[in-house]
Amino acid sequence: MGVRDPRVEGRTQAPGGPDPDVLSAVFARADAAARAQATLSRSDAETKNALLGHVADALDRSAAGIAQANEADMAAARKDGMDAGRLDRLRFDEERIHASAGGVRHVASLPDPVGEVVRGYRLPNGLRLTQVRVPLGVVGMIYEARPNVTVDVASLCLKSGNAAILRGGHAARRTNEATLEVIGGVLRDEGLDPALVVTVDDFGREGAQAMMQARGHIDVLVPRGGAGLIRSVVENSRVPVIETGAGNVHIYVDRSADLDKAVPIVLNAKTQRVGVCNAAEKLLVHREVAEAFLPRLAEALSDAGVELRADDVAYRIIDGAGSAPGRLRHAVEADWDTEYLALRMGVRVVDSLDEAIEHINAHSTGHTESIIAEDYSAIEEFTSRIDSAVVMVNASTRFTDGGVFGFGAELGISTQKLHARGPMGLREMTTTKWIGYGTGQVRR
Amino acid sequence: MGVRDPRVEGRTQAPGGPDPDVLSAVFARADAAARAQATLSRSDAETKNALLGHVADALDRSAAGIAQANEADMAAARKDGMDAGRLDRLRFDEERIHASAGGVRHVASLPDPVGEVVRGYRLPNGLRLTQVRVPLGVVGMIYEARPNVTVDVASLCLKSGNAAILRGGHAARRTNEATLEVIGGVLRDEGLDPALVVTVDDFGREGAQAMMQARGHIDVLVPRGGAGLIRSVVENSRVPVIETGAGNVHIYVDRSADLDKAVPIVLNAKTQRVGVCNAAEKLLVHREVAEAFLPRLAEALSDAGVELRADDVAYRIIDGAGSAPGRLRHAVEADWDTEYLALRMGVRVVDSLDEAIEHINAHSTGHTESIIAEDYSAIEEFTSRIDSAVVMVNASTRFTDGGVFGFGAELGISTQKLHARGPMGLREMTTTKWIGYGTGQVRR
Repeated sequence: MGVRDPRVEGRTQAPGGPDPDVLSAVFARADAAARAQATLSRSDAETKNALLGHVADALDRSAAGIAQANEADMAAARKDGMDAGRLDRLRFDEERIHASAGGVRHVASLPDPVGEVVRGYRLPNGLRLTQVRVPLGVVGMIYEARPNVTVDVASLCLKSGNAAILRGGHAARRTNEATLEVIGGVLRDEGLDPALVVTVDDFGREGAQAMMQARGHIDVLVPRGGAGLIRSVVENSRVPVIETGAGNVHIYVDRSADLDKAVPIVLNAKTQRVGVCNAAEKLLVHREVAEAFLPRLAEALSDAGVELRADDVAYRIIDGAGSAPGRLRHAVEADWDTEYLALRMGVRVVDSLDEAIEHINAHSTGHTESIIAEDYSAIEEFTSRIDSAVVMVNASTRFTDGGVFGFGAELGISTQKLHARGPMGLREMTTTKWIGYGTGQVRR
Repeated sequence: MGVRDPRVEGRTQAPGGPDPDVLSAVFARADAAARAQATLSRSDAETKNALLGHVADALDRSAAGIAQANEADMAAARKDGMDAGRLDRLRFDEERIHASAGGVRHVASLPDPVGEVVRGYRLPNGLRLTQVRVPLGVVGMIYEARPNVTVDVASLCLKSGNAAILRGGHAARRTNEATLEVIGGVLRDEGLDPALVVTVDDFGREGAQAMMQARGHIDVLVPRGGAGLIRSVVENSRVPVIETGAGNVHIYVDRSADLDKAVPIVLNAKTQRVGVCNAAEKLLVHREVAEAFLPRLAEALSDAGVELRADDVAYRIIDGAGSAPGRLRHAVEADWDTEYLALRMGVRVVDSLDEAIEHINAHSTGHTESIIAEDYSAIEEFTSRIDSAVVMVNASTRFTDGGVFGFGAELGISTQKLHARGPMGLREMTTTKWIGYGTGQVRR
């Protein structure tokens, strides 16, 4: 079924759209990127890996300068009253820059997806068909205040033979500028066109609007950030979009669950990092284990500072046990559709596996869900019927991550079904081309 | 393969969009399809193949009735002045119905894409990851006056575990209704929900408009038909679209070409069937073989009734040889971007392989291009640099077709890069799901 999209709002694009001059400037930048990409797309993996090595070295060498630019962004953001969570994402200090450089080296070490033969066979008439992976072309990225994404996207794009056109947002502008200057310098030194990795931040918001209009200039647009940003891009873009990120993530504790596994998994999924898309937001517990499980869990969550929004049955059990003093609330209907991104969890008791699956498929954003169970048939049922990008069995939802999956970095986590689903790495940044090798075949 | 209507129609969306009642009715139909699809998606291949066998048998049995409904559509279309090409596509006589039934049996005989493991590995922490193919969900199709597409899409959708919601156009309404009644009857007989394959034709144009608004209800929308229809869907849809069809198809005859192969290939690609998206529209000839090749080719094309739109150099050579009397015209700039879908071909002499590649990448719609050459390096250069869905070597462009590629039928030919590129068969009607099997893993 479709990506459940409870968000039906008006279009956010300013009436009239961006200035025609901005439009043509952004289109020209994308076209220059496309021309540079046509050359990069034919580079072999050795060349691209060496390039990424130089990028990593340059980032290491320039860490102090980039960090200094970041300090200026941080100071301005603090003055603007940015909250602590966003400030933390905006921070790109020397340690994080070196870590990013390490990520670039990791991407360099991965296999090149370009040229991979997906399938191939000989037709009855002797025509030999092969379907091979080729780069997508020009990848547009619209994101907010996350300077590490600049490096991640640049490295994934260069390795997969793509060009990148970026809108990194006002708050991180100095940091992104300093970072892109370093990357551009390496591209120039290596005889490549710095147009391969460019920003449109100099056009402000109109730059992002122009990217959304750049059908035929940009091949795919990936928004990464808050729900408002993603919705705006999905609704306004004429360029094909890959929707990312929103995670109303569920854990279902089956009646067959090993409760000794369930407690640490739920605790980890909820609290190991808050405010990320793969953090658990909702807990469904089978009625048969609710009495045994909920008090234990509520105590552990409560100790970790998590507020519980419980349905009536769960409320009675937790309240009766007195295991979440001061942190227990009654859930309202809206809770089931809300991604809290906070120390808060919705808790609901279900009568059956069926009810759990139906609830999840009705309320999930299709990101990640997990079942805690020992019963084989329940696990089969859950994994086959849950309609989400990732389904975990007896494991934390926090593992849905390009790095964890072995992709080195990620472009984002797709919650849509078209093209890519789940963490997007190098392979997801390719399309395919069919090549038919003939000896004079004509159609009869 | 897409048979295309050259007539360009205006936007189909009325100002203000469809009536709210139509919107909610179409959304409800899509949601019912999604619920039915949730069941179908878990059917094994044996069950789905048996279902398709019953559909084929029922089509054979009901051929006379469907053909009768089609006769009524044909009579109305003739009265409305429909041209011969469109009338031919609208025709769904008993012979064609039996052929369609044969296509359904062919689709039944193909491997089931659902459940295929795309990749899988064990993470360092022991979590076992597998990425498996699953159905897309609800596939929307907007097409025009082609009753065979109804059967193709229904069979591909059912085999791949998807539901189909169709807008088949006013002209074919009676035929599609009769066809869907047969398919619905089989679904009912087999204990499945007839909501799996439904039409919105009863809402007229507003039905198509509502489908484009059905984000969250329909997973992907595929327009198939004339350029106007496709453009309208691409521009207006809030549902992810796969763009199909437009084919400004090129053949490049290299200086290394075997001219004895080149003449029949160009003739076949241009004339074997006119008005289809994989028919060649443009010919580029290397200067070194232009004198030897063009007169021979022009004579053959001219004999087949093809008008030539030649650039100055080509014009001089063909005119000098007197080999296309009465069928030779000067090309104008617009010719290079026009998909004629007619007995007409643009001809241009190029100085180099480079010039040919640049011309094609600048003017092609990214459907299919072919190189006629014997030189290995020229072929490598052409196949790697041409940015189209299909690149043929020494073969007719007419082979770009789901049937020819062995897909049994096709949903259309994607000319975009996201999700699917080239002919779309069963595999292209799937997405993937990651399943992580753990033993209590939490993230550190």
